[in-house]
Amino acid sequence: VIVLLNGQFLPEEKAVLSVFDRGFLYGDGLFETMRVYGGKPFRWQQHMERLRRGAEFLNLRLPFVPSELRQFAAELVARNGLPEAILRLTLSRGVGPRGYSTKGADKPNLVMTLHPVLAIDPQNPPRWKLITASLRVPAHEKLSTFKTCNKLPQILARTEAESQEADEALLLNTNGDVAEAASSNLFWIEDGKICTTPLASGILAGVTRDVVFEICERLGMRVQEIAIQPETLLQAQGVFLSLSTLGIVEVLKLDDHDLRRSPATEKIRFAYEDLMRNETA
Amino acid sequence: VIVLLNGQFLPEEKAVLSVFDRGFLYGDGLFETMRVYGGKPFRWQQHMERLRRGAEFLNLRLPFVPSELRQFAAELVARNGLPEAILRLTLSRGVGPRGYSTKGADKPNLVMTLHPVLAIDPQNPPRWKLITASLRVPAHEKLSTFKTCNKLPQILARTEAESQEADEALLLNTNGDVAEAASSNLFWIEDGKICTTPLASGILAGVTRDVVFEICERLGMRVQEIAIQPETLLQAQGVFLSLSTLGIVEVLKLDDHDLRRSPATEKIRFAYEDLMRNETA
Repeated sequence: VIVLLNGQFLPEEKAVLSVFDRGFLYGDGLFETMRVYGGKPFRWQQHMERLRRGAEFLNLRLPFVPSELRQFAAELVARNGLPEAILRLTLSRGVGPRGYSTKGADKPNLVMTLHPVLAIDPQNPPRWKLITASLRVPAHEKLSTFKTCNKLPQILARTEAESQEADEALLLNTNGDVAEAASSNLFWIEDGKICTTPLASGILAGVTRDVVFEICERLGMRVQEIAIQPETLLQAQGVFLSLSTLGIVEVLKLDDHDLRRSPATEKIRFAYEDLMRNETA
Repeated sequence: VIVLLNGQFLPEEKAVLSVFDRGFLYGDGLFETMRVYGGKPFRWQQHMERLRRGAEFLNLRLPFVPSELRQFAAELVARNGLPEAILRLTLSRGVGPRGYSTKGADKPNLVMTLHPVLAIDPQNPPRWKLITASLRVPAHEKLSTFKTCNKLPQILARTEAESQEADEALLLNTNGDVAEAASSNLFWIEDGKICTTPLASGILAGVTRDVVFEICERLGMRVQEIAIQPETLLQAQGVFLSLSTLGIVEVLKLDDHDLRRSPATEKIRFAYEDLMRNETA
């Protein structure tokens, strides 16, 4: 496996960082995870735009310009011979003095890694069972909208899901409303509208979430951002998740409740696959 | 500088970790920060006990037994010739497959580093100005009681404090109550009682916070754990912070408000310094 570290392509065993890197010490960094399809990262530009906004919010410097990063990504795919893959880009604040202050930490580290992806059988796509995680995420938190390297709540929630033989965990926020799932945004269908929780619910501003908005517009489906209580979610005409690595994943079960299934989910899933194929062709 | 990495003493430039370490990727780890005084880490056992509980909560394996860790710490102090220092111990989950699931990540990494400490002038100890951070931490969150490597909220809050020329940031929780400060627990004096926020406010279970409880008991001062609104805090007879690196730090100002000062703060601070001197002698 070949890894990109600060502009250098290295075999993975040589891709190492100081134990004083603030990413390791405090999760002081950001990342992006993209689906590489036919050799091309899908929606590269949106991922870079979110990274740029997050870096601005955290006052992190991006050590390369977008065109350099795009070239690095292409070369990483080529060197690894993995045209179907997951690409992860991590930006950490690098080494600085001990403590939470970021003063004196001005040499960020940038890493890109490529990971194998499981091919989806179009006849039998993943359909998931969710459980409700016991922890709560803060509502109205701008930090949550960015993809930061602080992911312990998501790790704990996922672990809880696995311990109950579920695929993914539903996260509620401190108001008791539905936020999102541990690694994905959540959509549901109600009165023929495609609904999802607003950013103010304390959720990640998902790139795939935005792609779903686009698809619905093209398909002439109405979209609504609205808060929802977990009990109400059980009454939805259909529920699905959006995530960069897998696209659209239908939810069949939440805790002990079977959910209804809507043909709209399949329609959006097909449109997503089409879009990915076309844009990366 | 000599660093301990998985039982090996290494010069800092050789103390490196894989870019696939989950501490770097997700902040998937825990740490402890201790004051080393006269060559001995103060309250080593309480720090190890919190680490042990946190590791249990996160299902992280501690790769060394307590007596080994204690010996590593002593040797690290000796090799660096730094009997007055801050010792940081970090435990990360190590390398595992991509994604939030912890499955397959079973080789944790353990790091100890030693950092210089500024000597406190007993005649002129630090006294701080606080500002109220604009972000909110979740109330009632068990994860917050442990010292995890997810510290972006604290980093943002500290950065906000620095931008207003303050020393530290006060964190409120999602209920609007006072939680703690970015790197310290908070105490105030009211009707002659020493008060602090309860763990349910979403705070770290501070080792120094527990030491303050002990000291108050010895001094015959009553202690109360109670939630408080930020407005009420302004009326307190005195306010101070507790943190392992500096001990007791009086707060002089919160945002634009001068705070009252109580002789109890100095009493507790002296008792703390005494205790540290005696226990490490």
